[in-house]
Amino acid sequence: MRPEEGDGSSVAPGFHTMWSELRPVGRHPGTGGYRRFAWSGADAECRAWFAEQARRRGLVHEVDRNGNQWAWLGNPAAGDAVVTGSHLDSVPDGGAFDGPLGVVSAFAALDELRARGVRFAKPLGIVNFGDEEGARFGLACVGSRLSAGRLTAEEAHRLTDADGVTLPRAMEAAGYDPDAIGADPERLGRIGAFVELHVEQGRALDLTGDRVGVASAIWPHGRWRFDFRGEANHAGTTRLADRRDPMLPYAETVLAARRNARLAGAVATFGKISVEPNGVNAVPSLVRGWLDSRAADRAALDTVVTGIEQAAHEYAEAHGIRLDVVRESFTPVVEFDHALRDEIARILGGAATGLRVPVLGTGAGHDAGILSGTVPTAMLFVRNPTGVSHSPAEYAAEDDCVAGVTALADVLEGLACR
Amino acid sequence: MRPEEGDGSSVAPGFHTMWSELRPVGRHPGTGGYRRFAWSGADAECRAWFAEQARRRGLVHEVDRNGNQWAWLGNPAAGDAVVTGSHLDSVPDGGAFDGPLGVVSAFAALDELRARGVRFAKPLGIVNFGDEEGARFGLACVGSRLSAGRLTAEEAHRLTDADGVTLPRAMEAAGYDPDAIGADPERLGRIGAFVELHVEQGRALDLTGDRVGVASAIWPHGRWRFDFRGEANHAGTTRLADRRDPMLPYAETVLAARRNARLAGAVATFGKISVEPNGVNAVPSLVRGWLDSRAADRAALDTVVTGIEQAAHEYAEAHGIRLDVVRESFTPVVEFDHALRDEIARILGGAATGLRVPVLGTGAGHDAGILSGTVPTAMLFVRNPTGVSHSPAEYAAEDDCVAGVTALADVLEGLACR
Repeated sequence: MRPEEGDGSSVAPGFHTMWSELRPVGRHPGTGGYRRFAWSGADAECRAWFAEQARRRGLVHEVDRNGNQWAWLGNPAAGDAVVTGSHLDSVPDGGAFDGPLGVVSAFAALDELRARGVRFAKPLGIVNFGDEEGARFGLACVGSRLSAGRLTAEEAHRLTDADGVTLPRAMEAAGYDPDAIGADPERLGRIGAFVELHVEQGRALDLTGDRVGVASAIWPHGRWRFDFRGEANHAGTTRLADRRDPMLPYAETVLAARRNARLAGAVATFGKISVEPNGVNAVPSLVRGWLDSRAADRAALDTVVTGIEQAAHEYAEAHGIRLDVVRESFTPVVEFDHALRDEIARILGGAATGLRVPVLGTGAGHDAGILSGTVPTAMLFVRNPTGVSHSPAEYAAEDDCVAGVTALADVLEGLACR
Repeated sequence: MRPEEGDGSSVAPGFHTMWSELRPVGRHPGTGGYRRFAWSGADAECRAWFAEQARRRGLVHEVDRNGNQWAWLGNPAAGDAVVTGSHLDSVPDGGAFDGPLGVVSAFAALDELRARGVRFAKPLGIVNFGDEEGARFGLACVGSRLSAGRLTAEEAHRLTDADGVTLPRAMEAAGYDPDAIGADPERLGRIGAFVELHVEQGRALDLTGDRVGVASAIWPHGRWRFDFRGEANHAGTTRLADRRDPMLPYAETVLAARRNARLAGAVATFGKISVEPNGVNAVPSLVRGWLDSRAADRAALDTVVTGIEQAAHEYAEAHGIRLDVVRESFTPVVEFDHALRDEIARILGGAATGLRVPVLGTGAGHDAGILSGTVPTAMLFVRNPTGVSHSPAEYAAEDDCVAGVTALADVLEGLACR
C-alpha cells in the first residue's frame, strides 16, 4: 500500500484513517522520505498520534521512564499480558512502513477483534518503542535496550547527535526527564508474550509467493568503524609519491567488503563516511568509514569481518596510512522463542485465512530482538514485493497489509482470548 | 618557521611581531589548524590586523568594493604602482603560511627597504585579497575574480555556504555592502606590476636545495562533481544481488583516478564526498564525489579526466548506477608575464644575496593567476621542506622565510626604486 492510497478497504475504516493521519508527519517534501528522528518535532507528532489512538479506543495510555509509549486494555499487573506494536521513528529519508506498519496493524487488529466480538482472557498491550532506528544518536533500539537493561543510563547519557546535542538534552528539550531513564523490569514483567509485526526488508516472501511469514531468528550483526589516517595536503601541488591519501585504502576496503561478503553468503556495507577536511582541493587527513555486516551465523560473520579487516590493514600499510578499527556494536544471533513460534504457526495454520506461513530469518535488528532475552517474543513479516526498505520507495501492497492485520488479529485472539 | 617560533631574528623585529600577532587568530585549539573563513569572525580579526599594519607604517588603507584590502605608499593614480601581497584566509584546518607569509613578507620587505634608506620612484601597494581559498563558498579567489571581472556580481550572489548562508548575507553580516561588488578596472588599473610571494606547496625547491624560486606558470586545473545515484536500502536485509549501491563504483573511480594521474604525470584527487542518507545501516542512494585534477598542459589534463570519466561510467553501468559528471570549474594554464619574470630573475641574480633562483611551475591557483590576465604578474616561492600545505603541519624554515623577505625587498627595490 502506498501511503497515498487508502480507498476500497476490506478492513475496518480506521485502518485507512490511521494511515492518512500518519502520512504527512515528518515527510520531506523534496525526497518523499520520512525524517522522524528521536525527540524531534516529527517524533512528538507521532507520539501525539499514538496517544490519540489509545484515547479513541478507550485504552489506558502511559509513557514509561524511557519514553516508550504503551496503550493497555485490561490490567497487566498479573504479568500475562499479550503485547504487540513496533516503532514510529524512521531512518533518514525512510519509508512509510518500517515501524508504523506494526503500530497501525496493532490498533487495526484490536478493532478487528472487537468487530469479531471476542472476549479477552488476558490484558492486551500496544507499544511504540522510542528511537528504534538510532538515526539520530547512532545506536539502534535505545528505548527497548534501556528498558531491558541492555543499555545503561550512563551509556545512554553519553550518546550525542551530529550537532553535538546529547541524548539527555534532546529528551529534556522534548519535555522528558533524562534522569529517569534506565532498566524497567517491572513494566517488561507485565508481558507474557510480545509479537511485533513488520514489513519484510528483503524479498524472501516475494520469492516464495506468500503474504505473511513468521521470524525464526535475527542474524548476528555488528558495526565497525574504520579510521584511515593520512596527511592533509594540497591536492594541486603535492606529488602523488609524497602523498599519504587515506581515500585510496578506504576505496580498496569498500571493494574488499563486497568480495568477502559475496564469498560467505553474507552482507557487508559501507554506507556512512566522514572525511576531514573534506575539501575539493585537499588530500584528506582522515577518512572514517563505517562497516555494517551480518551473516546467518557467528562463524560466517567472523570470517567476513576478519577478511575485510586484514585486507584493510594491508591496503593502509601500502599507502602509509594508519588504520584503527573499532567495533562499535555487536548483536549475537537472536533465536525467537520456539514455543511461541510454534503456537503462532499452529494458530495461523488453523485460521480461516488458510495462509501458508513460512518461517524465515532476517538480517535486521528489531525491538523484538532486544526483548527476546527477557520475554517470549515473536515476529510476523508482511511481504515486500521489491525488498526495498529504508527508502522512500519502500512499499507493501494493500492486500498484503490487510492480510497482515488479519493474521495479527488471529494471533492475538489465539494468545489472549482462549 | 613554526608559528610558535620567532626569536633570534635576522630581519627587522617587526617581522616576528607580525607573526606573533597573527598566530592565535582563527587557530583551532584541538587541531592546531587555522579556520579563517571568508567573512567570519577570524576573517574580521585578520582584516583588523592588516589595517593596523598599514596604520603603523603610515600607509593609506582602503577596502575596495569586493572587500580586498589595500595599503598604499604614494599615490597610485598614474597606473604604475608596484603591488605585492597575498591573502589571510585559510582552508579548513590550514597552515600558518599559505597566504599570510605573502602579506607578512610584504610589510617586512617595506620595513627592510626603509631600513635600507631607498627612495621610491613609483608608488608601492600591499594587498590582502578576500576569500582566496574558497573554503566557505566553494569557489577560490572570489575577491580577485570579482575585481578582474572573472566572476560577475550575479554569479557571486548565488554562492552559498554549507549552512545555506549566501555570500551577500555573509558580507552584510560582516558589515560590507554586497550590492557594491563587481569588476574594478579603475583600481586594478593602478597596478604596473604585481608580485605575490607564497610558501611553496610542493617540494621542488627542497629537491633542488634552493630557498626561493620564481613561478613560470600555473598548471591548468579543474573540479568535476561525480554523482553516483543508486537506491537506498536496508544494509542488513537486502541481498547483494538486489542492491544498487553507488559506493562501489565510487570506490572503483577513486582508484581509477590515481592510476590515470600516475600514468600521465598529473595529479587527481577525490578529497570531498557527500553521501545520502549516510546511515550505517543504509545502502546509500547517492554518493557524490568531487575530483580535483591538474596537469602541466591541457592535453595531459584532458587525457586524465577523460580516462577517469570513461572508467567511472563503465563501473556505474556494471552496478546499475546512474552517473552524472558535472565540470564545476576550469582554469586554463596561466603563463606569468615573461618580461616581468626575466626582470625579477635579473634583479635576484644580480643581488647581494647571490641566490640561485630556479623557475618552476605550480599546480596551485593563486590571486596572481587571476590577475595575470589583467596586469603583469609574477610569483616568488619560499622553500617548503616537507611539501605539506593546507594542513596544520605546513612549515617553512625561518632562514628561508627571511631569505624570502630579502628577495621580495630586492625585487620591489628593483621595480619601484630605479
